[in-house]
Formats: sequence, C-alpha cells, structure tokens
Amino acid sequence: MKNMDLNNLLSQMTIDEKIGQLVQFVRAFYSDDKNGEITGPLNELNITEDVIWNSGSVLGSDNAEDMIEIQKRYLEKNRLKIPLLFMADVIHGFRTVFPIPLAIGCTWDMELAKKSAEIAAKEAALSGTNVTFSPMVDLVRDPRWGRVIETTGEDPYLNGLFATAFVQGYQGNMTDEYNIAACVKHFAGYGASEAGREYNTVDMSERNLRENYLPSYKAAVDAGVELVMTSFNTVNGIPSTGNSYLMRDILRKEWGFKGIVISDWAAVQELIPHGVAKDGKEAAKKAIEAGVDIEMMTSNYVNNLRELIEKEKIKMELLDEAALRILELKNKLGLFENPYRTANAQKAEEAYLCKEHREIAREVAYKSFVLLKNNNILPFSKEKNVAIIGPFAKNNRILGPWSVQGKEEEAVNFLEGIQNKIGREKVVTVEGGGINCEDKSNFAEAIEAAQKADVVILALGEDQDMSGEAGSRAYITLPGVQEELAKEIFKIGKPTAVVLFNGRPLEMTSWYKEAPAILEAWFPGSETGNALADVLFGDVNPSGRLTMSIPYTVGQIPVYYNCYNTGRPKNEGTEGNRFLSQYIDIPNEPLYHFGYGLSYTEYSYGDIDLNKTVMKYNEKITAKIKVKNIGKMAGIETVQLYIRDITASTVRPIKELKGFKKIYLEPNEEKQVTFEIGEDMLKFYNSECNYLSEKGKFEIMIGHDCKNVKGAEFELI
Amino acid sequence: MKNMDLNNLLSQMTIDEKIGQLVQFVRAFYSDDKNGEITGPLNELNITEDVIWNSGSVLGSDNAEDMIEIQKRYLEKNRLKIPLLFMADVIHGFRTVFPIPLAIGCTWDMELAKKSAEIAAKEAALSGTNVTFSPMVDLVRDPRWGRVIETTGEDPYLNGLFATAFVQGYQGNMTDEYNIAACVKHFAGYGASEAGREYNTVDMSERNLRENYLPSYKAAVDAGVELVMTSFNTVNGIPSTGNSYLMRDILRKEWGFKGIVISDWAAVQELIPHGVAKDGKEAAKKAIEAGVDIEMMTSNYVNNLRELIEKEKIKMELLDEAALRILELKNKLGLFENPYRTANAQKAEEAYLCKEHREIAREVAYKSFVLLKNNNILPFSKEKNVAIIGPFAKNNRILGPWSVQGKEEEAVNFLEGIQNKIGREKVVTVEGGGINCEDKSNFAEAIEAAQKADVVILALGEDQDMSGEAGSRAYITLPGVQEELAKEIFKIGKPTAVVLFNGRPLEMTSWYKEAPAILEAWFPGSETGNALADVLFGDVNPSGRLTMSIPYTVGQIPVYYNCYNTGRPKNEGTEGNRFLSQYIDIPNEPLYHFGYGLSYTEYSYGDIDLNKTVMKYNEKITAKIKVKNIGKMAGIETVQLYIRDITASTVRPIKELKGFKKIYLEPNEEKQVTFEIGEDMLKFYNSECNYLSEKGKFEIMIGHDCKNVKGAEFELI
Repeated sequence: MKNMDLNNLLSQMTIDEKIGQLVQFVRAFYSDDKNGEITGPLNELNITEDVIWNSGSVLGSDNAEDMIEIQKRYLEKNRLKIPLLFMADVIHGFRTVFPIPLAIGCTWDMELAKKSAEIAAKEAALSGTNVTFSPMVDLVRDPRWGRVIETTGEDPYLNGLFATAFVQGYQGNMTDEYNIAACVKHFAGYGASEAGREYNTVDMSERNLRENYLPSYKAAVDAGVELVMTSFNTVNGIPSTGNSYLMRDILRKEWGFKGIVISDWAAVQELIPHGVAKDGKEAAKKAIEAGVDIEMMTSNYVNNLRELIEKEKIKMELLDEAALRILELKNKLGLFENPYRTANAQKAEEAYLCKEHREIAREVAYKSFVLLKNNNILPFSKEKNVAIIGPFAKNNRILGPWSVQGKEEEAVNFLEGIQNKIGREKVVTVEGGGINCEDKSNFAEAIEAAQKADVVILALGEDQDMSGEAGSRAYITLPGVQEELAKEIFKIGKPTAVVLFNGRPLEMTSWYKEAPAILEAWFPGSETGNALADVLFGDVNPSGRLTMSIPYTVGQIPVYYNCYNTGRPKNEGTEGNRFLSQYIDIPNEPLYHFGYGLSYTEYSYGDIDLNKTVMKYNEKITAKIKVKNIGKMAGIETVQLYIRDITASTVRPIKELKGFKKIYLEPNEEKQVTFEIGEDMLKFYNSECNYLSEKGKFEIMIGHDCKNVKGAEFELI
Repeated sequence: MKNMDLNNLLSQMTIDEKIGQLVQFVRAFYSDDKNGEITGPLNELNITEDVIWNSGSVLGSDNAEDMIEIQKRYLEKNRLKIPLLFMADVIHGFRTVFPIPLAIGCTWDMELAKKSAEIAAKEAALSGTNVTFSPMVDLVRDPRWGRVIETTGEDPYLNGLFATAFVQGYQGNMTDEYNIAACVKHFAGYGASEAGREYNTVDMSERNLRENYLPSYKAAVDAGVELVMTSFNTVNGIPSTGNSYLMRDILRKEWGFKGIVISDWAAVQELIPHGVAKDGKEAAKKAIEAGVDIEMMTSNYVNNLRELIEKEKIKMELLDEAALRILELKNKLGLFENPYRTANAQKAEEAYLCKEHREIAREVAYKSFVLLKNNNILPFSKEKNVAIIGPFAKNNRILGPWSVQGKEEEAVNFLEGIQNKIGREKVVTVEGGGINCEDKSNFAEAIEAAQKADVVILALGEDQDMSGEAGSRAYITLPGVQEELAKEIFKIGKPTAVVLFNGRPLEMTSWYKEAPAILEAWFPGSETGNALADVLFGDVNPSGRLTMSIPYTVGQIPVYYNCYNTGRPKNEGTEGNRFLSQYIDIPNEPLYHFGYGLSYTEYSYGDIDLNKTVMKYNEKITAKIKVKNIGKMAGIETVQLYIRDITASTVRPIKELKGFKKIYLEPNEEKQVTFEIGEDMLKFYNSECNYLSEKGKFEIMIGHDCKNVKGAEFELI
C-alpha cells in the first residue's frame, strides 16, 4: 500500500464514479474529440461522454505521448482525480517482437521466456502501458484453432512453468521501474473450443478441466498475476464471464486470487447471444455476481448496475469490492503519485529494438526453431550459392499475429538475414506463387533458380492472418500451391531445406517424405532472418523441441502425447489385430511428437540409476542418468522426465512430463543429470476431483523426447 | 415368474456354480471336443473344462441344430440342469438383412424399425438365439468412428424413440413365441470416442452425458430391455465396466434397471490396460462391485471371485444377486420348461428371407435412402438404357457390417435389382477401379459405357470393412480413385446419379457440385437392388431424412445440428466480420444437415398457428401448420418440430427436435399437422444436473428439416 487511503477514497465516490471504475473502452474514446468522432460509438453504447471521464481504464493506448495526453485530459475532467489505468495487448514483445508464444514454448527455456517478458514490459512501460493482456496460457490440443499461436502448447506442467516465467518477467516485484501488471487469460478452457472453431463451445469433465486446463492459470495466480481475463467459451454450459463457480469458487475461494477479473472484449454483452441473459441488465447482474470487475468494451455495467443496486437486485458490496480492486492496482502501480508513471517517449525510442533487445529476440528465435528432419544436408556451408524460394523468401509478415506494436519494416527478413550471414552476392530469391494463391506461373523461374543454386531453401508457410484470433482453419495444410511448388523443387535433387513459417502445427503428410530437411521456424519476430541464418549455416546448433504434437493429418485431431492407454492399446507386436484402438488408414502417432526436435549432433543416454525402488510418502527418489554428446558439434540437450502411474483408481495418462533439464554438451562430453521425484509429483485428480497420490507402481521415463526414453520402475508405499 | 423357485435353486448352487452363471464364452468351447481343439484357449484363460459346463451363457450360436446339440450336451454335464442361455449379435436382421441402423434411422419410422426387429427376433428365435446384443443406441457426432453404422444418429430424442422401437420389436412382451431378449449397448457414451478413434477415451461433462448421451439408454430401460452392455470407454476417467457410478447409481438406482449387465468382449480384462486394475483379481472385484453380472470372454470372475469372497474382499450377496438375475432371465424365457425354446431348423429355414420378410426389408431400404441432390434427372424412365459404373455396380458386399448371419449371395445386388425393374437388355455395368485401389486402367471402358448409355448410375462407396467395429477412418472421402472416376463421368454430361454405399457420412466436397444427383443408399441389406430400382425409376418417391450431419470436410468434425449459439454466432448479415465463431476456409454448416432429404415432389408450409403464446406450467400449447404437396407425385413428408429455449440458466442448443409427424400427401393435397407442446418437452439438465424447465421465451420451429422451418414464439410463465 502506497500513500493512498483507498477505503477513504472509495467512500467519497458516488455510485456512478464507482461504476465508472468498472468500465473500459478503447483509446479513441479519450481523444480530443473536437469533431464528434466518438458520438456514434457512444450512441451505440447508449452512454454519454461523462462515462468516459469516470471510466477506470482504457484499452489499446501504447505510446507515451498519447498516454500522457489522455491522462492529462482525463484528470482535468475526473472529479476525484483518480488516474486512468492503461492496458494493451503486449503479447510477444512490444516494438521488439519475439517469436510467437508457441515458438517460445519450444525453447523450453524459462529464463529466456522471462527475459522476453521483461523486455516487453520495459518497452511497454516506457510507452505508457500499465497492464498487458498476457500471458495467454490456454492448453491446446487442436491445431485448427488459430489461437494456438498464443500458447506454449499441450502440456499442463510446461504451460504452468511458462505462465510463471511470463508473469515474473512482466511484473517483477511490481515496484521495479519498468514493470507492468500481467493479465493471465483466458480463464478457463478456451483452448478446448470444439472442432477447433474459434469462440466455440467447450465441454469436458471437471476432472479433465482441473487436471489439464486449470494448472497453468493456477501457476500464474501463484506467481502473483494481478489480473485474470475471462474466456469467451462456456464451461459446463455456463459462459465463463457469467460463471460464478469458476470465478468465485475456484479462482477466488480455492486459489485465493485477490486481483482484478476482466472480461474479454464484449464478453459481458455476449452472455445474451450465449443464451444465459435475456438483456443487458441480466448480463450485468450475472457478470458482477460471477466476480467480473471490469467490463471490456460494452456498456451493460454502466447502464444497469445503478438500477440493479437501487432495486436491491444486487448488493452494493459487489460494486465496492470490484471498484476497490481497481483502485488497489492503480495504487500498486504508483499512479496516484505519478499518473504518467514511466511513460517517456524519448527513453522508449531508445529502448525499442536496442542492441540488447535485438540480441535476446535473436536468441529466443534461434532457440525456438525445431529441426524436424535433416538428411545430413544441414548446416549449409557459407560458401554455397543459395536460392530462397517461396512466399517467405523476403516477406516481412513474419512478426506473427498479436504483434500490435511491432513494425514489419523493422524486422530482419529471411533474405536479409542470409545476406548478412553469407553476403549479398550468393543469394537469389524467387517468391513462387504467393501464400494462398493458385498461380503457378513462376514455378519455372523457381525451378531454374533451384537448378542453378548449390543449395535451396524453401520458405513456405501460412500468412499470419491465417492463425491468431478468429484464424481457425479446417484444412491445416500449406495453403495455395506451395506443396506443389515444394514437390517440383524436391524433384531437382538439390540439398533443399524447407523452412516453415506458421502459427500452428501444419499437416505435412503429402510432402514430408520427399523433403531432405525441414526446419519449423514459426513466426520468429524482429530477428527472423538473422536467427534463421544462424541455424541454417551452423553458427547455432538447433535445440528447439515441440510442445504441441504435429498431427499426421487433420482427421487425427485431437492427438497429444499425454493421452490414455485405452483398454485396447496398439502396442508393438499387435500388428494385424484389427480390434485395437486405431484408425484403419493412418497411424495413431502424430507425425512429430511432443518433445521432439533434432540437432546437428547426437546424444546417447545411459540407463536410469534410481537410488531406491520403493518410496514412502514423505520420501524422495533420485533418478540419475548419463547423457553424452556423441556427435561433432556442441549442443543443448533438453533431458526430459516423464512419469506414468501404472494403476490408479482413475485412469492416468501413458506419460506425463514432470521435469526436464537443459544441458550444454561439447562433443564427447558426458554429464550426469539428476531428477528428484517426490510424492507431490505423483498427485492427480481422481474421479471425485480430489487431488492426491495413490500407492502402487510408477514408471519413470527419461530421454530425448516423449518417445525416445529409458525406463525404470518404483513403487509408492 | 414361471414355474421355478429361483431362490430355492440358488440355495442349492455351490459357489463355483454361481460363479459359472456369470461366465460367457463363444460357442466353440461347447463343441464336441474330441480333438482337444479348445484345450489351447482353455489354457490361455487358465480354466478347466468344468468351467464350461457350469457357465451360464454362450456367445455366437445362431443355428437351431447347433443350439439344440450344445444345450443337450451341456445339460448332460451340468449338475443342476440349469439351461444355457444363447446370445448372439443380431444387429440389423438375421438371415433377412435390413439396412444398417444408421439407415433405419433415416426412415424416421418407428413402426417399421420395430417390425424389422420383430422379424430379426423371429428368425433368431427359430435359430435358437435367446438374446441379441442389440440395439446399439450410442449418440454419435463423429463420422470417423466406424460404429456410427450401428446407431440411429446424432439426436437424443430420435435415438430414444428408436431404442424403444427396437426393444419392443425384439422383446414383445417376452412371452410371445418368437421374442428374444434385447441388450441395449454400449453403456455409456461410447459414441463420443475421442478423435473418432475406435475404443478411445471419452470425456465430457456429466451434464452433457445426461442431456445428450444417456436418454437413449434410458428409453431402452423404460421400454423394459432385459440386458445392458457396458462400453469399452472411460466415463469421467473410469472405464464403464468398472464404473459404479454409472452402473449402480445411475442405471440401477436412478433408473430402476432390474435386468442383467454384461461386459463387452473382454472388457473386464481390459480394466488392466486401462490402468484401473493391477491384475485379474482387482479387475474382477471392480467389475462385480460396479454391477457387471456377466463377464464376456475372459476369465477374471471364474479365477478370482471365489477367493475374493472367501477372503471377504467382496460380499457373497454381490455374487448371489448377479447369478439370480441370470436365472431370472432364463426363467422368463421359459428355458427351465423348454431349454430348446423355439429352436427349430425347419421352421427357421421357412422364415429366412420369406416373402413377407423380404418385402419389409425392401420397404425399410427404400424408405432409408436419402436423396441429397437432384437436378431434375431422377427418377429415370424405365425406357432408358442404363450404365451402372463403379465398384458397387454388381457387388454383393452390401449387407453392411454386423450382418453376421446374413449371406451375401442371398442379397439382391444393384444390377439384379435394376434388371428386375427394367429388363436385362437395357443395363450394362463397368466396375471401374475397385473400392480402395489406385487402378485407373478401366476408366476408358467406364467412359465408353457412359457415353453409349442414356443415363448413368455411379455406384460408389466404401467397403463394408471400412466402417463397423474397429473401422475408424481419418480420411472420410470416397476411397481409391472413385472421386476421379466420378469426375470423368460427370464431364460426359449424361444424366448421372451417384448412389453411395457407405457406413458413415462421407466427405463429398470435392465432387458434389458436379454431380447431377446424389442418392445416399448406406448399406441397404438383402433387398438392396430392388429397393434402389424402386426409387431410381420412380415407383417409390424417396422420403429418407438424415439423422446425422454430413460434414463439409473432416476438419469440421464434430458438426451437429443441436449445437450452442456461442457468444459470437455467425448469422445472416454478419458477413465480413472476422471475429465470429467460424473457420476462415469453410462454412460452419455441414454439407447436408440433420433432417434433410429431398423427394420427387415439393411441399409448401403455411405459418405456425399457436392456440396461445403464454403457457403455464400445467398447460399445453397446440401448434398447427398446414402442409401441401405442390409437386406432381404423391409422397411422404416428415414434418419436424424443433424448440429453442432462448434464455436459461445454462446454455441451451439453438434447436432441439421435440416431435415429428410423417404424413402421406397426394399431389395438391394439403393436411394440417398438429403438435402438442407440454412443459415436459421444455426440460433440460442445468449445470447442477437437475432436470427442470425454466420460465421464459421459447421459439418453435416447424418444417421440412432443421434449417427450413417456420417460426413462432411463446412464453412459459
């Protein structure tokens, strides 16, 4: 608590001023409206300008001068001089754009993830932003859904670690100069949108919700996240934004969350089309009862809360507690002392894309690339002549969705990065037929360029508009004629590396066999070209690992590593038996599995050495394993620990990630990696949703990825 | 109760004899084993021959002489002369094979469905079968899953009506001469196997389970079904076969089911790979505690129940109640009086495929065909020369999966049916490249035949092995080169009707636009050719309606009509708005929707006439609508009633089928159709799983299918 008596302040506020704190509109509403430009929107919302000057927070301001001007104007008009809170979507970087979160996930590097959030926070804070709507920690199993770009993948444990890292990175201890408050989203289960269709219904058992989907939000809360955003979807038939069980019972009572709950864009209003509120009044009542403090972009609170309170349909305390939470955050951020906080246009300009920020962006990028296939053609020699073919050859739309403050022209594109690495004269580009077009007219030019080159890079992918919010695709193959272009180039027989730019796992079944090498680049951000050149020409040994399965085909979705065994598993030695859990036309396994990723070296694993095979409840077991670099290049190996509860009262996954260690190994170097296994790592939700461990046998698996592991067994007694 | 004192009998039984009643093996185990052929299987199961002669029931005997011989031999060896119960898979007919259940669903005709079950029961009873493992009433939304062939579709209400009809058809009042006991399956939720992969995990909220999946099983129980089979899947993390909540709390306590619960094949044993039992003993304990009376095909009961009882791990009462239920069914079937019951080889032969049975099979078939598209080319004139092209032109694999007792050679194939209708000389066939092969070598012959013919029938589809149990497909398009064949034929421009043989909704997106007409025939059974000729040449006006949505593409799955609205629905007038619940590459709607189906005439609908627009809880509303045949052929119209609860405490579907009427209309004839709407039709499960109705506005929709409807509104007060 800084130097404000918030309860005293609250007691001076009128009911309308309190309601105002709960309202959030976009920054356009606060502009110097000489021309009445916002009259239309205000009329649509059925509100007057007064509401604007009482509102508690604003959405989308991300420039220091703008922030200062708005805050100044606001404070002139606000009776009690309560400063406005500035929120923005700072998702994977601010002006320095980091890879998309799905790519950051593939680094398995929490320090780096945290560092990226710190940099984003610094650039944002200097630009007048107080709160970011990040991290998004929704667990995902369906690559049709466009927002998989915003998450770190399909694993609850890993998502929880990243949630913590991002929150710590943005927030620090909330007293540092350049911290901003984080808002974890979307609570809860949004990643399970049915059929991968954006904003669609979610349905699952509460046990599944608690075991797989909730842990990452919980991790963010435990890390001290200041805000939680509701999700658009229903949970057990009730939209999150009107769901008291989620927001009150789980989030606030069970988890002890004290911060602000904010609706997603118009989500209070959307309780009407969802069919749980007949009008705005009922929507406002349900949302505030569910514990939603801030209504984003719609006016149901401002138009109805007063009447609801006066007619005693809701209690005044609901309004007071919501308004107080918002005041508390403003106070925590020091806005009462300095409403402009760290907004400083000049310092911001100095920070944007500064050397340090670019260096970290480059490191995150090259550590996020996942080498999916390599028939010994990578790394390329810097002496070779290179043809870069395909729509991403010199495309600057490589920042990825939700890079609001990023500028495409400030990104180093693929061509530029390679030119920086090997010189301008050794590189040619042919863009092929565009991302999503059917034009093959310059295939001939592409083929000719490939024939003349020593090595070929196929720069293929999806436009960034094809993923992200409202970017659901039913077909998840390479769009347009890119697969055909690739096949034509493969036929030439030159050493050819496919580099993929995309916001989701793509279906590669029709062409991956013919590809000599495939590097999954995602959308790498500001340092795209440099980071790719680092890896493709061997200055960096790729170390990224998939955190989301790449399905064999769209008809295999959902496919994820921590699935159940079923009663009729398809195991080795069961070939020819029809009556197993399988398809008749494709394998059960995804094309590339969780944890997978190649490098330019190889690692060999010893056997697991357990210090005991029987474990009491209060004991720990130590598992040791030796890992050796048996190749010729130094590299970073991510040693992964999986555990399986073989028999329990409720079915348990065939494996669950429970730990990992990143180790750096020189050629021929061997290190011993140690994991401690405690009873807390064996807990799960049983069918009554109790969280516990059960006696019995457990399998430990340690290895390079979820499939290539060594095994051992112990018993919990 | 017939003339047996079952409690007295039970009291005379040893513990092993009681356990024996709970055991079921296939008929091979009871054969006259002179050569020790079953020694191997007995050893594998770790049982002795004694177990066989104490076992309570047998699986898969379906011929009268066989049954009589086995029963005779059994009774000679069984100490208490307790007759054996004979069970078999009689799924959609016995020797007279009806269309697959998914097709029967498309008739929307409960009388006909019941009649088909009566005929199957008669042929089965005469063949010595006492119990059939039918009906399968699993609700399905995923056409990848092969067992969609066995259900009547995606609607809980319609599935419940069919469940009732089938149970009544098989069982009658259980005292008729030719009744057999029915076994409803698979309890519960098997149709929701994740990713459409056979035997895969199921996860959903209990509310969803109760609202969508359970009603059809409940309808079967209410209709007096004698047996319930467990499903292979988990429900809330616990395999059904070990799930006390499902089997004891819901099935027996809530629903009052008094009959026998039988495991699916080896499902007790499969509690081990599922991971909820560490060995056979624990599997047996969990299954009997969950209320599974009969263990099918594995030996965990027989090898462990005695020890479990003796060591007081389970109570003797569990065994007694299970054994007694089995004795009760035997008694109800009159087996104690006549262990051979109605088994009679000669009478059976007379019944098989008799004129009446064939006639009903033909009627069910032609009423199950769904005319999906018709550019005014159907019906064909009988004067025309016809080319039937494609792998089903004269294929007898048209009985469909699970037609165990049917004989392909007894089916009337497509060619034969058309020859019967228009004469041999006017028909030619070319089979094209086979069902699932890549051979295009006889495309030329097919093209030539099409060019010479007046009209063309493309007889395309899936082999029957590509659906049914363990027939999951990730690609649901026409297999092999059939789509290419079709496109070649379409190019010729002859009046061409595609007739589809398949066990699931198929993806038709790449070719349906070019097809002049499409008739969905499913697998029509014994009278395939005759029924198809009836419809194609206009002797019968097609009237089938889809009960499962045909998706636009596999990437749209699951897609079903009774979905939720979402907070951002894509409605008319929202074109151009990205931020809606939609895909960026395909429509939200399936290619062909629930309730859809064309005929050779057209119907016009008047407006809905409600007798009042406000309804009290104890009142009923009457909705009337006039329907007129405005075409030139008499036809059967299925008038469908849908209701939507506009606002409720829990999100409600955008529409739910609540009634329908089949009416016959001559050309120009008009009839008034009346629906009564009571409060019970407005009930649903809220988020706490209470079943209730809520005050507020409701929308009534009446029309031809789920999309083409007239609307009205009323309020429940």
